[in-house]
Amino acid sequence: MVSERPFQSEEEFVRWLQKRAVGRVQGLRLGIGDDAALARVPSGREIVMTTDLSIEGVHFSTRLYTPETIGYRAIARSLSDIAAMGAVPKYALVALALSKRASRRWVESLYEGMWRLARRYRVGILGGDTARYSGKTLLDVAVIGEVARGKALLRSGAKPGDRLFVAGTLGLSAWGLELLKARARKGMAHEALRAHLYPEPQCGLGRYLAKEGLASAAIDVSDGLSTDLHRLCEASGVGARLWESRIPRPQASANGRLQARLLQFALHGGEDYRLLFTSSAAKVRRIPSSFQGIRIHQIGEVFAPRKIVLMHEDGAEQLIIPQGYDHFRKS
Amino acid sequence: MVSERPFQSEEEFVRWLQKRAVGRVQGLRLGIGDDAALARVPSGREIVMTTDLSIEGVHFSTRLYTPETIGYRAIARSLSDIAAMGAVPKYALVALALSKRASRRWVESLYEGMWRLARRYRVGILGGDTARYSGKTLLDVAVIGEVARGKALLRSGAKPGDRLFVAGTLGLSAWGLELLKARARKGMAHEALRAHLYPEPQCGLGRYLAKEGLASAAIDVSDGLSTDLHRLCEASGVGARLWESRIPRPQASANGRLQARLLQFALHGGEDYRLLFTSSAAKVRRIPSSFQGIRIHQIGEVFAPRKIVLMHEDGAEQLIIPQGYDHFRKS
Repeated sequence: MVSERPFQSEEEFVRWLQKRAVGRVQGLRLGIGDDAALARVPSGREIVMTTDLSIEGVHFSTRLYTPETIGYRAIARSLSDIAAMGAVPKYALVALALSKRASRRWVESLYEGMWRLARRYRVGILGGDTARYSGKTLLDVAVIGEVARGKALLRSGAKPGDRLFVAGTLGLSAWGLELLKARARKGMAHEALRAHLYPEPQCGLGRYLAKEGLASAAIDVSDGLSTDLHRLCEASGVGARLWESRIPRPQASANGRLQARLLQFALHGGEDYRLLFTSSAAKVRRIPSSFQGIRIHQIGEVFAPRKIVLMHEDGAEQLIIPQGYDHFRKS
Repeated sequence: MVSERPFQSEEEFVRWLQKRAVGRVQGLRLGIGDDAALARVPSGREIVMTTDLSIEGVHFSTRLYTPETIGYRAIARSLSDIAAMGAVPKYALVALALSKRASRRWVESLYEGMWRLARRYRVGILGGDTARYSGKTLLDVAVIGEVARGKALLRSGAKPGDRLFVAGTLGLSAWGLELLKARARKGMAHEALRAHLYPEPQCGLGRYLAKEGLASAAIDVSDGLSTDLHRLCEASGVGARLWESRIPRPQASANGRLQARLLQFALHGGEDYRLLFTSSAAKVRRIPSSFQGIRIHQIGEVFAPRKIVLMHEDGAEQLIIPQGYDHFRKS
């Protein structure tokens, strides 16, 4: 199990990583321990590349999160970007700037969390770079994936008349964060807490949509529906109409105030990592009603005016302004 | 030119990056602005992947370095890893955790430094992730490169009897750091300062050695000859004998003390980013005496005992212990 003796050197840490390395990753020729990792790319495939920071005090707090969830969530963020491209994640490079306060057990648990998710998707964690320093703990996870040539899902392909879909519930993660902050410990089994602590990137669905050519555009909802839909619309040069009644949000008992907040979470809350995608009217019938147990909801449609409006049941139209988290502006 | 108005949002920063993006990068289908970047990999090629942290207070100080040199050096570290694999660097993902103290001009200069080196090697900087926070500025640069299938240079192929080579002078960068710390400003044109501030990754040489199949093993000297030769020997299960008189070090006027220190810099100083490689006796004659103006020096040979010894001119043998920088242990 875990040991409390600290790592004596970078070499000892690298040896520990090598011993614990995930099993065989198809295509990988060389993982940890050389100047760089080396991998085959099957012919007919393109590579996709993304990188995501997780910073103590910005993306996580060591008081609210266990190291295992911090590691899990860091991998989830990057895998979700790969899912949104319709690609298969293959390799992760982890750069870890480690606070001097972090114990060996803490680092081992962090990696346990990363491996837990990486193993499930057969992603190889290829080491990377690690340093101890007198600052805040920070992870950067770069993931490289593969997709069949010409099949990647882009943000830029949505056209007026396309329908807008989301896979799974929105706002659960923001609600989970609220519960976590309130230390709702007896609610640990709560669906929202689970969604916040262990989000599930939708790699299978992304891959399916890409392979079948069903989506005209796609993005993952990482900073909130209002923000990520805005990004998709900007990239495509279009706008969108959302139907309030169709937006899949957490169910709450008859509590009007909570229900209103859950709609706000669904519209603006971050870290749901659900795929948001558009599909031409001709292909709508081929979109499955659910995929791997997750319901797919048609929540609106694309139109030409470059704005996002929310249609209420009483027919009222509300202009939606992006309110998602911007790590650049807010901090 | 540079503007002093701060970036208002992550989106504005991304737009600035997109406008300034390096020109066409062969193979790149999609750079900044989607969930991930997308690129073709020619058939018959493998990909290499590496990531390197540059942390304020560990790898750089904002008092000693301009943002332009910080950016340049961060890219150089990763490109040198790719060079040591004999690969061609193609794409860089930059994750930037930015201290709140950093001005817009500072960030722009940082990117100017990164682009300066990236452009020269036709490497596309694909954006990545950026956040402002209340900690120290930190960059993580992941680079993806390409190499012909089966041609990558590994650390693990050295065999007893192989000869040991290094391309260019060792210890210049450590000397340059000393001059920099001493604020030897009038010495700005000094070769050592230049080597420290603007190291040149040896991508051309790495690629040549890989293509021609000349090297049995290779590594870049980033943490000092004693440390990186130790790593190469460990990976290959061998040892090495170095000839003191052959170790290429900076020339100094007749100053015995300085000359002794320059030998120490050459043996243990970091950040030279020279390629250290081995070649079988049968191929030694095919190793050029210089490449792109850089002299290639035969500095020793590989033997079976798993130790590194330095042979002095008087015939004395000295055991060499790795003394390079270990960011894990020292900090």
